[in-house]
Amino acid sequence: MLDFLSGLQRTVMCGELRAENDGQEAVLMGWVNRRRDHGNLIFLDVRDRSGITQVVFDKEVSAEAHAKAEAARSEYVVAVKGKVRLRGAGLENPNMDTGAIEVVAHELLLLNDAKTPPFSPAEDAISNEEVRLKYRYLDLRRTEMQRNFALRSKVAMAIRNYLVEHGFLEIETPFMTRSTPEGARDYLVPSRVHTGSFYALPQSPQIFKQILMISGFDKYFQIARCFRDEDLRADRQPEFTQIDLEMSFPTQELVFRVVEGFLTAAFKAAGIALTTPFIQMTYDDAIKSYGIDKPDMRLPAMISLSDELTPALRESLKIESALPVLGFIIPSVGELSGTARKSLMSEIRTTFGDCGLDALDVPRLKTNTTFAPLAEAIEKKLAAGADDLVVVITPKLGTPAKWNHDPQWIYKRVGALRLQLAQKFADKHGRFNKTGTEADFKFLWVTDFPMYEWNEETKTWDAAHHPFTSPHEDDIKSGRLVNDKGAVRALAYDIVLNGTELGSGSIRIHRQDVQQEIFRSLGMSDAEARERFGFFLDALEYGTPPHGGIALGLDRIVMILAGATSLREVIAFPKTAKAIDLMVDAPTPVSEQQMRELHLKIAARS
Amino acid sequence: MLDFLSGLQRTVMCGELRAENDGQEAVLMGWVNRRRDHGNLIFLDVRDRSGITQVVFDKEVSAEAHAKAEAARSEYVVAVKGKVRLRGAGLENPNMDTGAIEVVAHELLLLNDAKTPPFSPAEDAISNEEVRLKYRYLDLRRTEMQRNFALRSKVAMAIRNYLVEHGFLEIETPFMTRSTPEGARDYLVPSRVHTGSFYALPQSPQIFKQILMISGFDKYFQIARCFRDEDLRADRQPEFTQIDLEMSFPTQELVFRVVEGFLTAAFKAAGIALTTPFIQMTYDDAIKSYGIDKPDMRLPAMISLSDELTPALRESLKIESALPVLGFIIPSVGELSGTARKSLMSEIRTTFGDCGLDALDVPRLKTNTTFAPLAEAIEKKLAAGADDLVVVITPKLGTPAKWNHDPQWIYKRVGALRLQLAQKFADKHGRFNKTGTEADFKFLWVTDFPMYEWNEETKTWDAAHHPFTSPHEDDIKSGRLVNDKGAVRALAYDIVLNGTELGSGSIRIHRQDVQQEIFRSLGMSDAEARERFGFFLDALEYGTPPHGGIALGLDRIVMILAGATSLREVIAFPKTAKAIDLMVDAPTPVSEQQMRELHLKIAARS
Repeated sequence: MLDFLSGLQRTVMCGELRAENDGQEAVLMGWVNRRRDHGNLIFLDVRDRSGITQVVFDKEVSAEAHAKAEAARSEYVVAVKGKVRLRGAGLENPNMDTGAIEVVAHELLLLNDAKTPPFSPAEDAISNEEVRLKYRYLDLRRTEMQRNFALRSKVAMAIRNYLVEHGFLEIETPFMTRSTPEGARDYLVPSRVHTGSFYALPQSPQIFKQILMISGFDKYFQIARCFRDEDLRADRQPEFTQIDLEMSFPTQELVFRVVEGFLTAAFKAAGIALTTPFIQMTYDDAIKSYGIDKPDMRLPAMISLSDELTPALRESLKIESALPVLGFIIPSVGELSGTARKSLMSEIRTTFGDCGLDALDVPRLKTNTTFAPLAEAIEKKLAAGADDLVVVITPKLGTPAKWNHDPQWIYKRVGALRLQLAQKFADKHGRFNKTGTEADFKFLWVTDFPMYEWNEETKTWDAAHHPFTSPHEDDIKSGRLVNDKGAVRALAYDIVLNGTELGSGSIRIHRQDVQQEIFRSLGMSDAEARERFGFFLDALEYGTPPHGGIALGLDRIVMILAGATSLREVIAFPKTAKAIDLMVDAPTPVSEQQMRELHLKIAARS
Repeated sequence: MLDFLSGLQRTVMCGELRAENDGQEAVLMGWVNRRRDHGNLIFLDVRDRSGITQVVFDKEVSAEAHAKAEAARSEYVVAVKGKVRLRGAGLENPNMDTGAIEVVAHELLLLNDAKTPPFSPAEDAISNEEVRLKYRYLDLRRTEMQRNFALRSKVAMAIRNYLVEHGFLEIETPFMTRSTPEGARDYLVPSRVHTGSFYALPQSPQIFKQILMISGFDKYFQIARCFRDEDLRADRQPEFTQIDLEMSFPTQELVFRVVEGFLTAAFKAAGIALTTPFIQMTYDDAIKSYGIDKPDMRLPAMISLSDELTPALRESLKIESALPVLGFIIPSVGELSGTARKSLMSEIRTTFGDCGLDALDVPRLKTNTTFAPLAEAIEKKLAAGADDLVVVITPKLGTPAKWNHDPQWIYKRVGALRLQLAQKFADKHGRFNKTGTEADFKFLWVTDFPMYEWNEETKTWDAAHHPFTSPHEDDIKSGRLVNDKGAVRALAYDIVLNGTELGSGSIRIHRQDVQQEIFRSLGMSDAEARERFGFFLDALEYGTPPHGGIALGLDRIVMILAGATSLREVIAFPKTAKAIDLMVDAPTPVSEQQMRELHLKIAARS
């Protein structure tokens, strides 16, 4: 027989009572975390969001409350009226915030019962993802999940407060919009009012925030849900949350300062101090030093060893002279056994067999009088210590200078190897261990992305960022935009943390003539541009200010701050491929036949 | 030839300069609000979000800047470098915040040009809605719209900060969900991954917030977009924003205090002080006193005059004795002419002809010796002053006591007349004029709504609120839930302001047995309940705490605070029936044929 609350109000949360509350009356409400029955004494640990309090039911104090406590089981919902008292000497629990006290109950309400749960929220995570999602409400009761969502709320508020204090207005943009080109598949919503039309759910509020700048709002932000109909992965959800902002009359640097400001506020909310400004690096430098546009700076960069290898040395080692020799170290790996070293060399050669790259075995060079000076010069250039693994990649004679039409291919391949080995020896160098200090968070701005990418398949130039990104002023003035597309740099930038792209932005095109030129250069006819972006192209003609902005993924930031490895730890109701029968947010079934026809229609549109 | 920004940064906003800035260098950026050409002197009023600064271009100071200013037109985007100086004596403009100064420009950048706009953002609103929406970016540049959206951002932040300070966590819930019964038509999103299924866009996060309570989050809120596929009206948009919250272990009063708290914070952000707690009234009292469940308290209530009408008086006036006589006053109407009075009586009789209600002509009664004492008693009971219009509605003999199966019909009809006359004489009593003082905002909680409504058509009891609303504890304990549905009161409440429902909430059902009972009482089989709410019904069995909450419409609150009469004044990109060719958020067309087939499918589902 369950009890009603009947207007009873709790006076204190379960994590709040301390020694100084000794003697006070308390009303607690929460879940039975654990129950221990010692006959005349029954102990219920009562849990809520804030923590746990030990409650004692003594038959002498209240036989009725004691009898109810006997009936209580794990995850029952209870209300307790009682008196706070200090625990007996030696009975304090220093591992609990409330460990100095207990509550002696004189009344117990059983507000709800609970089936025996498939796993206990009092325990650590269980590994069966499917069970965790099926009983998501139990999974979310776990301390770790409670902490993650409290953190998420706090981080979002810190970001909002920072932006509002710095003059940004939060303005809501529509969810049912016209489809715009963002690279991924849209979710579609058929319209009933506008017969013959679909809405698209936004992949980002890009066009809207640009129109808000044209509307004179000057500084806009929104923490906005966005949608991409892509396949599910642990680090990708079809619904994701974006910190989206746009400013009028900006320089890149102004955008950077705002982002550094709100990230500092967000990290501070999680107890981590950041130093600003963040480092900046051009796209070209990132590729040359890390072989990737989102460098992980926790390990040393690649260094060109071409100067160390004279033409004579190159010849005797059969190294292609037109291409760079690249080296890097993985720190603190320690001495590898002969077998381990041999297997590593073989792994590298297998990896690179298809593109004519080889590796120098530096320890072996050292044993050879001809090459020992070279080995020493390499170690010196790489600043390699005794415990560091030295990796030197050499293009074999006959390796083509251009490969796959990408002049930077060699940097990218060696950069990928660097990351692969960094992971392989992560236990050794320990740089990827999350300890939550500032030193663990290596932020970086990557700037000056190329404006265009050559599409070898279609033999056309594609927009590397999106078609609203402005080229450098110089590239507009010089005519390079028309004559030398490959050399045009975009005013586009990424914010990168530990090898992960957190966000991406740009200074936008604000002139209609430039926007038309970019659409044309991407192979879009004026008629097509008008059909897709008519409203926006018109808007550009009525006094559009220079503007620019950025969007960062909130989910990923929270994931990093929570030390989580999956978005499912920071999204309350994630979607999973198997979710259809498990979750409350699963879609509603319709017949196969209806769906097939609908798919044909959607296919016909894309 | 347009100029580039080339890294130039503004130093001050256009609304900021004052007399004390005399002599300072300033860089301003914005739009040309107005241009006046006096030959060697050209004046540009430069406008941004913050205000307007007068800029002077003197040929003597810079011939180049002067020449560019000559080319500038309304809504051109400019950057100005110049020196602040006091305006000459007598030339100050006390109507402008910056009216004491002007900026003497030595450099002008024309950052963008503008076609001649179809209406000037410098002017007040134009009445052509279609043109305003087609050129929304120009409409949004108007001072009034800039103010509305700054207000909206501020109000939302005030609400968020209040809730966070009071222990609420903002937790995001999915946009693509399983369809749940909320009374309106869902927007549907076909799923590609789960072949054969649609998602629904949420009409509210109802089920999710309840699951968050089951998950132990204790206090949740979200400022969430919600969706209803209904026909468009000025006060209804298919996308709307809801302040949504839920609490564990609450009483109604606790929910009320939270709402009063954040509304006070929101109104304070708009410069209006509120007094709390708000008045409370039961649904029955609201109907008896105002004839409606969302009373407008700015005018006096209806009062029963039955005691004033003795059986003898009723008989001589041919008034039905089983039904109440209801009177009310509309204050300050002043004396009506005989013709006006006659026409009013006739209007009332026409209105009420179908249901046997009549009106007493109180001034005429006063001229008759038999009825004069009655007329005086009525005026006394209604506390009518000399200038007040007295309206007394009487059921004619033979009027059925129950009409349309609703025992409260007479209150509702008379209440509707009260509102109609209140509007008709609004100019006279002046109570509907928005002056922005606290007295103009009459908040009210309406409580104890009936749990069920009798559906005469289907001869069944429907849920008056939604099927997750808890009945009063007493009605569960007493068995009334099964035996006497019409008498069951729900723990449901509305927050009402000046006759508008701002929000609606309830204490929810937290026990699985009660929830099943409610589903059954609404004619839903256990199998059907399981199919639609299986995940939720399961969740109820694993330790669900008592919980309750509310949702308020943010759009409407901002509309009231902005003194606006349409949602289009407070939603940046509203949807309109004509919008398809005008707006950037219009849906993307597909063929008629494709759409027709899709509609058939959707129709088959609902």
